[in-house]
Amino acid sequence: MARKSEQLIIVGSIAFDDLDMPSGEHRNVLGGAATYAALAASLLARGNVRVVGVVGTDFPEEILGDLRGRGIDTSGVERAAGRTFRWHGRYSSDLASRTTIDTQLNVFADFAPKVREEHCSTPFVLLGNIHPELQVRVVGQMRGPKLVAADTMNFWIEREPASLAKMLAKIDLLIINDEEARQLSGIHNLVRAAADIRKRGPKSLVIKRGEFGALLFDEEGAFFVPAYPLEDVHDPTGAGDSFAGGLMGYLASHGEASPIALRQSMFFAAALGSFCVEGIGPSRLLAIDRSDLAGRIAAFARLVNYGGSLFLPASHG
Amino acid sequence: MARKSEQLIIVGSIAFDDLDMPSGEHRNVLGGAATYAALAASLLARGNVRVVGVVGTDFPEEILGDLRGRGIDTSGVERAAGRTFRWHGRYSSDLASRTTIDTQLNVFADFAPKVREEHCSTPFVLLGNIHPELQVRVVGQMRGPKLVAADTMNFWIEREPASLAKMLAKIDLLIINDEEARQLSGIHNLVRAAADIRKRGPKSLVIKRGEFGALLFDEEGAFFVPAYPLEDVHDPTGAGDSFAGGLMGYLASHGEASPIALRQSMFFAAALGSFCVEGIGPSRLLAIDRSDLAGRIAAFARLVNYGGSLFLPASHG
Repeated sequence: MARKSEQLIIVGSIAFDDLDMPSGEHRNVLGGAATYAALAASLLARGNVRVVGVVGTDFPEEILGDLRGRGIDTSGVERAAGRTFRWHGRYSSDLASRTTIDTQLNVFADFAPKVREEHCSTPFVLLGNIHPELQVRVVGQMRGPKLVAADTMNFWIEREPASLAKMLAKIDLLIINDEEARQLSGIHNLVRAAADIRKRGPKSLVIKRGEFGALLFDEEGAFFVPAYPLEDVHDPTGAGDSFAGGLMGYLASHGEASPIALRQSMFFAAALGSFCVEGIGPSRLLAIDRSDLAGRIAAFARLVNYGGSLFLPASHG
Repeated sequence: MARKSEQLIIVGSIAFDDLDMPSGEHRNVLGGAATYAALAASLLARGNVRVVGVVGTDFPEEILGDLRGRGIDTSGVERAAGRTFRWHGRYSSDLASRTTIDTQLNVFADFAPKVREEHCSTPFVLLGNIHPELQVRVVGQMRGPKLVAADTMNFWIEREPASLAKMLAKIDLLIINDEEARQLSGIHNLVRAAADIRKRGPKSLVIKRGEFGALLFDEEGAFFVPAYPLEDVHDPTGAGDSFAGGLMGYLASHGEASPIALRQSMFFAAALGSFCVEGIGPSRLLAIDRSDLAGRIAAFARLVNYGGSLFLPASHG
């Protein structure tokens, strides 16, 4: 059923992170939503991934060269005067929660994403977590996209509800976590929250739950994918972005976003999220290849394989 | 592949619960692990479910009659002088945690389960959460069981490690929740915890995670079943016991405990757990029939249906 593979454009942050992990402190780690999403997507849609972002004068050209070496088009990455976006976070000992120590937006503060003319017809669009007004403007630049997906966060849900409502009305797929779904809808129960959010625009909604997997709600109903049970988790940074990048990379490589393709994409999303957390920053994403990914997908298939049939046993009473 | 259906014997508590729910207070609700497990199992293995337990002189004969009317053999339920086991619990507003207000063991304090001679050859055995020494004694009474499953709790893990170790060495399948798995193994990561626990005896381990689903670890590897995403959750009491009863009822009705049957049983377990939480106490389990169960199983099948194939898209880079 696979059609012609298509292009994917990813808009979002490119950053350096300082990560205080229980295992030690890590400084100047390559980060940002667009970075993680593009690295994940490139394992599925190599040569078909375009990034729109901004870096400062301090950002090494070699890193952009490395991304290009992975088949990622970085011609949409603008270099602005000033420093690159920096984030400093500290994780709890069980990695279940994190605190922001410092955020320096730097050149990201004035980020106004411009899609290059030759990229405006990209059929698959992933809008990372930026001001919803900017997300709306990006959608306005695109010509006839097949699927527009977006992320957002508590900050915008609290402070920019009007802009967020405009954004939701313009996208096909929202990819957020469970706390964001609850906050956005004001509803604790996720099934009801999903129904509420889908009424606001996106016909499909993915709710990420970290180590507890992810749920998809669309016109076909609910679908669930587990998180891969890992023995070693080192750093959750970027896992959600890798998930979104894997999901969109799979759909772009299939050239379609049918309900069944969307369900299959959830496994590739979860697989890339699972690799991401196995290393500090994007180190594991940078180390794996397509055969590693194929191996994890096979392991996922075993994790959910029940033989394909579920019948009520005959009654004997 | 279904073989001849077999008998299941369930040993555990029969109780009255006082439940302080966010929705209101409920008094003298029928409860106990054996009760929930037997009600769940009887929907799958009607006429093949035997219960071993104890009730006091205050326990209405009509309730035992109702259980018999559901094809549950209550001849192993002993009536002792004194009052029935009573538990009083209070749930948090989101139902995610609960506090015990009062526990009155009453006749359950001296419970020494005796398996009736004609029940000693029952091939499927579910040992509810009682003193591990008593669980060991029940296993000692059984003749050549096909599968012995057991539950336990933090109380025994803390206070009776030696008895618990003896019990673990005698069972095939342990069914516990994630916190119990962590406490029992002393290991936070569930994959490592599972490997540790399986070395102590049970070749198969099910780790229940409430609304986050359940994991099975056996010689074939890991398997995951989601919790059904519900719009209305009223009372988690007994959900874990309904899960275990559904799982064992499915296996008994199939007459085998192969890896694939065990994987399928996880859906029936999760389905019965999902019904349980939809009502106060066992009210929903008492209200549903086999067609309700078949409907939920079909919904589960949709929840995990990704078309059966997961292939890495061709590379174009």
